[in-house]
Amino acid sequence: MKIKVGISVRHVHLTEEDYNLLFDEPIQEKSPLNQPGQFAAEQTVTLEKDGRELKNVRIIGPNRTYTQVEISRTDAYYFKINPPVRDSGDLEGSEEITIKTDKSSITRKAVIIANRHIHITKEDREKYNLLKDEYEIKVPGEKGGVLSHVHIKEAPNSYYELHLDSDDANAFSIKQDDEVEII
Amino acid sequence: MKIKVGISVRHVHLTEEDYNLLFDEPIQEKSPLNQPGQFAAEQTVTLEKDGRELKNVRIIGPNRTYTQVEISRTDAYYFKINPPVRDSGDLEGSEEITIKTDKSSITRKAVIIANRHIHITKEDREKYNLLKDEYEIKVPGEKGGVLSHVHIKEAPNSYYELHLDSDDANAFSIKQDDEVEII
Repeated sequence: MKIKVGISVRHVHLTEEDYNLLFDEPIQEKSPLNQPGQFAAEQTVTLEKDGRELKNVRIIGPNRTYTQVEISRTDAYYFKINPPVRDSGDLEGSEEITIKTDKSSITRKAVIIANRHIHITKEDREKYNLLKDEYEIKVPGEKGGVLSHVHIKEAPNSYYELHLDSDDANAFSIKQDDEVEII
Repeated sequence: MKIKVGISVRHVHLTEEDYNLLFDEPIQEKSPLNQPGQFAAEQTVTLEKDGRELKNVRIIGPNRTYTQVEISRTDAYYFKINPPVRDSGDLEGSEEITIKTDKSSITRKAVIIANRHIHITKEDREKYNLLKDEYEIKVPGEKGGVLSHVHIKEAPNSYYELHLDSDDANAFSIKQDDEVEII
Protein backbone atom coordinates (compact mmCIF):
# COMPACT_ATOMS: atom_id res chain seq x y z
CA MET A 1 0.00 0.00 0.00
CA LYS A 2 1.45 3.39 -1.06
CA ILE A 3 1.32 6.52 1.10
CA LYS A 4 2.46 10.11 0.67
CA VAL A 5 4.90 11.64 3.16
CA GLY A 6 4.41 14.88 5.05
CA ILE A 7 7.54 16.06 6.84
CA SER A 8 7.05 17.78 10.20
CA VAL A 9 9.75 20.28 11.02
CA ARG A 10 9.95 21.58 14.58
CA HIS A 11 6.73 23.36 15.60
CA VAL A 12 4.63 24.46 18.55
CA HIS A 13 0.99 23.96 19.54
CA LEU A 14 -0.40 26.35 22.17
CA THR A 15 -3.44 26.47 24.39
CA GLU A 16 -5.63 29.54 23.96
CA GLU A 17 -4.38 30.74 27.34
CA ASP A 18 -0.67 30.33 26.50
CA TYR A 19 -1.24 31.88 23.06
CA ASN A 20 -2.71 34.97 24.69
CA LEU A 21 0.26 35.21 27.06
CA LEU A 22 2.60 35.28 24.03
CA PHE A 23 0.67 37.31 21.44
CA ASP A 24 -1.64 40.33 21.38
CA GLU A 25 -3.13 39.66 17.94
CA PRO A 26 -5.38 36.69 17.08
CA ILE A 27 -3.74 33.63 15.47
CA GLN A 28 -3.62 34.05 11.69
CA GLU A 29 -3.34 31.41 8.97
CA LYS A 30 -0.27 31.60 6.74
CA SER A 31 -0.83 28.38 4.80
CA PRO A 32 -3.13 25.37 5.22
CA LEU A 33 -1.75 21.93 6.10
CA ASN A 34 -3.04 18.75 4.47
CA GLN A 35 -4.89 17.79 7.67
CA PRO A 36 -8.28 19.53 7.33
CA GLY A 37 -8.59 22.67 9.48
CA GLN A 38 -4.91 22.65 10.52
CA PHE A 39 -2.63 25.48 9.40
CA ALA A 40 0.83 26.95 9.71
CA ALA A 41 0.29 30.29 11.45
CA GLU A 42 1.89 33.63 10.63
CA GLN A 43 3.02 33.62 14.28
CA THR A 44 6.40 32.19 15.27
CA VAL A 45 8.25 31.87 18.57
CA THR A 46 11.79 31.43 19.81
CA LEU A 47 12.59 28.28 21.79
CA GLU A 48 15.21 28.67 24.50
CA LYS A 49 16.94 26.33 26.93
CA ASP A 50 19.94 27.32 29.07
CA GLY A 51 20.87 30.14 26.70
CA ARG A 52 20.62 28.09 23.51
CA GLU A 53 17.96 29.37 21.10
CA LEU A 54 16.11 28.30 17.98
CA LYS A 55 14.29 31.20 16.34
CA ASN A 56 11.36 31.38 13.90
CA VAL A 57 9.67 28.20 15.12
CA ARG A 58 6.21 28.04 13.56
CA ILE A 59 2.97 27.89 15.55
CA ILE A 60 0.52 25.31 14.16
CA GLY A 61 -3.11 26.34 14.55
CA PRO A 62 -5.81 26.30 15.57
CA ASN A 63 -4.90 26.45 19.25
CA ARG A 64 -5.37 23.20 21.18
CA THR A 65 -6.23 21.95 24.65
CA TYR A 66 -2.52 21.43 25.39
CA THR A 67 0.75 23.27 24.78
CA GLN A 68 3.27 21.05 23.02
CA VAL A 69 6.66 21.57 21.39
CA GLU A 70 7.64 18.97 18.79
CA ILE A 71 11.34 18.85 17.90
CA SER A 72 13.75 16.40 16.30
CA ARG A 73 16.51 14.44 18.05
CA THR A 74 18.96 16.78 16.29
CA ASP A 75 17.27 19.76 17.97
CA ALA A 76 17.22 17.87 21.29
CA TYR A 77 21.02 17.41 21.17
CA TYR A 78 21.36 21.12 20.44
CA PHE A 79 19.29 21.95 23.55
CA LYS A 80 20.97 19.13 25.55
CA ILE A 81 17.64 17.59 26.52
CA ASN A 82 16.21 14.09 26.08
CA PRO A 83 12.52 14.29 25.21
CA PRO A 84 10.48 11.08 24.93
CA VAL A 85 9.18 9.75 21.59
CA ARG A 86 5.44 10.20 21.98
CA ASP A 87 1.97 10.52 20.46
CA SER A 88 0.87 14.12 20.08
CA GLY A 89 -0.92 15.16 23.30
CA ASP A 90 0.89 12.60 25.49
CA LEU A 91 3.22 14.82 27.52
CA GLU A 92 4.23 12.20 30.13
CA GLY A 93 7.96 12.61 30.76
CA SER A 94 8.26 15.56 28.37
CA GLU A 95 11.10 18.09 28.73
CA GLU A 96 10.87 21.70 29.85
CA ILE A 97 11.55 24.60 27.51
CA THR A 98 11.02 28.35 27.35
CA ILE A 99 8.80 29.74 24.57
CA LYS A 100 9.52 33.39 23.79
CA THR A 101 8.01 36.23 21.78
CA ASP A 102 8.54 40.01 21.78
CA LYS A 103 5.62 40.22 24.22
CA SER A 104 6.67 37.71 26.86
CA SER A 105 7.97 34.24 27.62
CA ILE A 106 6.54 31.11 29.22
CA THR A 107 8.29 27.96 30.44
CA ARG A 108 6.44 24.68 29.94
CA LYS A 109 7.08 20.96 30.36
CA ALA A 110 5.98 20.32 26.80
CA VAL A 111 8.79 18.98 24.58
CA ILE A 112 8.39 15.66 22.78
CA ILE A 113 9.76 13.96 19.69
CA ALA A 114 6.63 12.96 17.76
CA ASN A 115 6.43 9.30 16.87
CA ARG A 116 6.10 8.18 13.25
CA HIS A 117 2.40 8.10 12.41
CA ILE A 118 -0.22 7.77 9.69
CA HIS A 119 -3.28 10.03 9.62
CA ILE A 120 -6.30 8.11 8.39
CA THR A 121 -10.09 7.96 8.67
CA LYS A 122 -11.98 4.88 9.88
CA GLU A 123 -13.34 4.48 6.34
CA ASP A 124 -9.89 4.56 4.67
CA ARG A 125 -8.58 2.16 7.29
CA GLU A 126 -11.18 -0.38 6.28
CA LYS A 127 -10.82 0.36 2.57
CA TYR A 128 -7.01 -0.03 2.64
CA ASN A 129 -7.11 -2.87 5.19
CA LEU A 130 -4.87 -1.05 7.70
CA LEU A 131 -6.44 -2.51 10.84
CA LYS A 132 -3.31 -3.02 12.97
CA ASP A 133 -2.11 -0.38 15.47
CA GLU A 134 1.27 0.04 13.82
CA TYR A 135 3.05 -0.76 10.57
CA GLU A 136 6.47 -0.66 8.97
CA ILE A 137 7.37 1.59 6.06
CA LYS A 138 9.78 0.57 3.28
CA VAL A 139 11.90 3.31 1.71
CA PRO A 140 13.87 2.70 -1.51
CA GLY A 141 17.26 4.19 -2.47
CA GLU A 142 20.88 4.26 -1.32
CA LYS A 143 19.80 5.70 2.07
CA GLY A 144 16.68 3.53 2.20
CA GLY A 145 15.52 0.91 4.63
CA VAL A 146 12.59 0.28 6.93
CA LEU A 147 10.98 2.60 9.48
CA SER A 148 9.41 0.60 12.32
CA HIS A 149 6.67 1.55 14.80
CA VAL A 150 4.64 3.74 12.48
CA HIS A 151 1.46 4.33 14.49
CA ILE A 152 -2.03 4.45 13.01
CA LYS A 153 -3.78 7.64 14.12
CA GLU A 154 -7.44 7.29 13.23
CA ALA A 155 -9.66 10.38 13.28
CA PRO A 156 -12.62 11.72 11.31
CA ASN A 157 -11.74 14.16 8.49
CA SER A 158 -8.13 12.95 8.33
CA TYR A 159 -6.07 13.35 5.16
CA TYR A 160 -4.36 10.01 4.45
CA GLU A 161 -0.67 10.80 4.98
CA LEU A 162 2.49 9.55 6.73
CA HIS A 163 4.05 12.06 9.12
CA LEU A 164 7.81 11.81 9.69
CA ASP A 165 10.08 14.22 11.50
CA SER A 166 13.00 15.94 9.78
CA ASP A 167 15.54 13.43 11.17
CA ASP A 168 13.74 10.48 9.60
CA ALA A 169 13.27 12.41 6.35
CA ASN A 170 16.91 13.48 6.17
CA ALA A 171 18.35 10.09 7.15
CA PHE A 172 16.32 8.37 4.43
CA SER A 173 16.63 11.17 1.82
CA ILE A 174 12.83 11.47 1.77
CA LYS A 175 11.28 14.68 0.47
CA GLN A 176 7.85 16.23 1.10
CA ASP A 177 5.15 14.39 -0.92
CA ASP A 178 7.41 11.42 -1.77
CA GLU A 179 5.50 8.13 -1.97
CA VAL A 180 6.62 5.22 0.21
CA GLU A 181 5.28 1.74 0.82
CA ILE A 182 3.47 0.38 3.88
CA ILE A 183 4.51 -3.26 4.55
CA MET B 1 26.13 -10.60 14.10
CA LYS B 2 26.54 -7.63 16.48
CA ILE B 3 28.52 -4.51 15.62
CA LYS B 4 29.37 -1.30 17.46
CA VAL B 5 28.37 2.06 16.00
CA GLY B 6 30.67 5.01 15.41
CA ILE B 7 28.82 8.21 14.53
CA SER B 8 30.49 10.51 12.02
CA VAL B 9 29.59 14.14 12.47
CA ARG B 10 30.48 16.57 9.69
CA HIS B 11 34.25 16.65 9.04
CA VAL B 12 36.93 17.49 6.52
CA HIS B 13 39.87 15.61 5.02
CA LEU B 14 42.57 17.68 3.34
CA THR B 15 45.45 17.03 0.99
CA GLU B 16 48.86 18.11 2.29
CA GLU B 17 48.80 20.94 -0.24
CA ASP B 18 45.34 22.23 0.80
CA TYR B 19 46.26 21.85 4.47
CA ASN B 20 49.29 24.08 3.95
CA LEU B 21 47.16 26.68 2.17
CA LEU B 22 44.86 26.83 5.24
CA PHE B 23 47.28 26.42 8.17
CA ASP B 24 50.79 27.52 9.09
CA GLU B 25 51.33 24.96 11.85
CA PRO B 26 51.60 21.19 11.31
CA ILE B 27 48.47 19.09 11.84
CA GLN B 28 48.18 18.07 15.49
CA GLU B 29 46.26 15.17 17.06
CA LYS B 30 43.51 16.09 19.52
CA SER B 31 42.09 12.59 20.06
CA PRO B 32 42.53 9.23 18.31
CA LEU B 33 39.66 7.63 16.37
CA ASN B 34 38.94 3.92 16.56
CA GLN B 35 40.33 3.38 13.05
CA PRO B 36 44.08 2.84 13.64
CA GLY B 37 46.21 5.87 12.79
CA GLN B 38 43.20 8.18 12.23
CA PHE B 39 42.61 11.11 14.54
CA ALA B 40 40.48 14.18 15.18
CA ALA B 41 42.86 17.10 14.76
CA GLU B 42 43.16 20.21 16.90
CA GLN B 43 42.58 22.15 13.68
CA THR B 44 39.08 23.16 12.60
CA VAL B 45 37.72 25.10 9.63
CA THR B 46 34.61 27.06 8.72
CA LEU B 47 32.52 25.77 5.82
CA GLU B 48 30.79 28.44 3.74
CA LYS B 49 28.38 28.45 0.81
CA ASP B 50 26.59 31.57 -0.46
CA GLY B 51 26.99 33.33 2.88
CA ARG B 52 25.80 30.42 5.04
CA GLU B 53 28.46 29.15 7.44
CA LEU B 54 29.14 26.20 9.72
CA LYS B 55 32.00 26.89 12.10
CA ASN B 56 34.31 24.61 14.10
CA VAL B 57 34.23 21.74 11.61
CA ARG B 58 36.90 19.24 12.60
CA ILE B 59 39.80 18.17 10.37
CA ILE B 60 40.36 14.40 10.43
CA GLY B 61 44.03 13.45 10.06
CA PRO B 62 46.40 12.38 8.80
CA ASN B 63 46.12 14.35 5.56
CA ARG B 64 45.04 12.33 2.53
CA THR B 65 45.51 12.21 -1.22
CA TYR B 66 42.15 13.99 -1.70
CA THR B 67 40.29 16.89 -0.09
CA GLN B 68 36.81 15.83 0.98
CA VAL B 69 34.02 17.39 3.05
CA GLU B 70 31.55 14.92 4.60
CA ILE B 71 28.26 16.42 5.76
CA SER B 72 24.76 15.19 6.60
CA ARG B 73 21.60 15.77 4.56
CA THR B 74 20.56 18.18 7.33
CA ASP B 75 23.71 20.23 6.68
CA ALA B 76 23.13 19.96 2.92
CA TYR B 77 19.67 21.55 3.28
CA TYR B 78 21.21 24.32 5.36
CA PHE B 79 23.74 25.03 2.57
CA LYS B 80 21.06 24.47 -0.13
CA ILE B 81 23.20 21.92 -1.96
CA ASN B 82 22.55 18.33 -3.02
CA PRO B 83 25.70 16.24 -2.54
CA PRO B 84 25.73 12.60 -3.67
CA VAL B 85 25.77 9.66 -1.23
CA ARG B 86 29.22 8.20 -1.83
CA ASP B 87 32.14 6.08 -0.69
CA SER B 88 34.90 8.15 0.88
CA GLY B 89 37.30 9.20 -1.90
CA ASP B 90 34.69 8.99 -4.68
CA LEU B 91 34.10 12.66 -5.48
CA GLU B 92 32.16 12.13 -8.75
CA GLY B 93 29.28 14.63 -8.77
CA SER B 94 30.29 16.16 -5.44
CA GLU B 95 29.25 19.71 -4.54
CA GLU B 96 31.44 22.80 -4.26
CA ILE B 97 32.11 24.52 -0.94
CA THR B 98 34.50 27.08 0.52
CA ILE B 99 36.79 25.97 3.37
CA LYS B 100 37.99 28.88 5.52
CA THR B 101 40.54 29.52 8.25
CA ASP B 102 42.03 32.70 9.70
CA LYS B 103 44.90 32.27 7.23
CA SER B 104 42.98 31.85 3.98
CA SER B 105 40.17 30.14 2.13
CA ILE B 106 39.92 27.58 -0.66
CA THR B 107 36.94 26.50 -2.75
CA ARG B 108 36.74 22.84 -3.72
CA LYS B 109 34.33 20.46 -5.41
CA ALA B 110 34.54 18.07 -2.48
CA VAL B 111 31.22 17.67 -0.62
CA ILE B 112 29.64 14.23 -0.23
CA ILE B 113 27.26 12.50 2.15
CA ALA B 114 29.17 9.38 3.21
CA ASN B 115 27.34 6.12 2.65
CA ARG B 116 26.64 3.76 5.55
CA HIS B 117 29.65 1.46 5.89
CA ILE B 118 31.40 -1.17 7.98
CA HIS B 119 35.15 -1.04 8.56
CA ILE B 120 36.59 -4.55 8.65
CA THR B 121 39.75 -6.52 7.93
CA LYS B 122 39.87 -9.42 5.46
CA GLU B 123 40.43 -11.74 8.43
CA ASP B 124 37.37 -10.51 10.38
CA ARG B 125 35.28 -10.71 7.22
CA GLU B 126 36.05 -14.40 6.92
CA LYS B 127 35.73 -15.01 10.66
CA TYR B 128 32.30 -13.32 10.88
CA ASN B 129 31.20 -14.61 7.44
CA LEU B 130 30.53 -11.11 6.06
CA LEU B 131 31.43 -11.87 2.45
CA LYS B 132 28.75 -9.87 0.63
CA ASP B 133 29.38 -6.28 -0.56
CA GLU B 134 26.55 -4.81 1.49
CA TYR B 135 24.29 -5.71 4.39
CA GLU B 136 21.27 -4.44 6.27
CA ILE B 137 21.35 -3.32 9.90
CA LYS B 138 18.49 -3.89 12.32
CA VAL B 139 17.93 -1.26 15.02
CA PRO B 140 15.60 -1.89 18.00
CA GLY B 141 13.41 0.67 19.77
CA GLU B 142 10.50 3.02 19.14
CA LYS B 143 12.53 4.83 16.44
CA GLY B 144 14.05 1.59 15.18
CA GLY B 145 13.95 -0.14 11.84
CA VAL B 146 16.36 -1.29 9.16
CA LEU B 147 19.19 0.60 7.51
CA SER B 148 19.80 -0.70 3.97
CA HIS B 149 22.88 -0.47 1.74
CA VAL B 150 25.50 -0.70 4.46
CA HIS B 151 28.70 -1.16 2.48
CA ILE B 152 31.55 -3.41 3.52
CA LYS B 153 34.83 -1.48 3.47
CA GLU B 154 37.64 -3.97 3.78
CA ALA B 155 41.13 -2.72 4.61
CA PRO B 156 44.14 -3.96 6.59
CA ASN B 157 44.35 -2.67 10.19
CA SER B 158 40.65 -1.80 10.31
CA TYR B 159 38.76 -1.59 13.59
CA TYR B 160 35.50 -3.53 13.20
CA GLU B 161 32.86 -0.81 13.41
CA LEU B 162 29.71 0.53 11.67
CA HIS B 163 29.95 4.16 10.57
CA LEU B 164 26.70 6.12 10.36
CA ASP B 165 26.22 9.84 9.81
CA SER B 166 24.47 12.04 12.36
CA ASP B 167 21.16 11.96 10.43
CA ASP B 168 20.98 8.16 10.60
CA ALA B 169 22.02 8.18 14.26
CA ASN B 170 19.46 10.83 15.21
CA ALA B 171 16.58 9.34 13.21
CA PHE B 172 17.13 5.94 14.88
CA SER B 173 18.03 7.30 18.34
CA ILE B 174 21.41 5.54 18.09
CA LYS B 175 24.25 6.74 20.31
CA GLN B 176 28.02 6.38 19.93
CA ASP B 177 29.14 2.81 20.83
CA ASP B 178 25.60 1.37 20.76
CA GLU B 179 25.48 -2.21 19.50
CA VAL B 180 23.25 -3.06 16.54
CA GLU B 181 22.63 -6.23 14.54
CA ILE B 182 23.79 -7.09 11.02
CA ILE B 183 21.10 -9.09 9.17
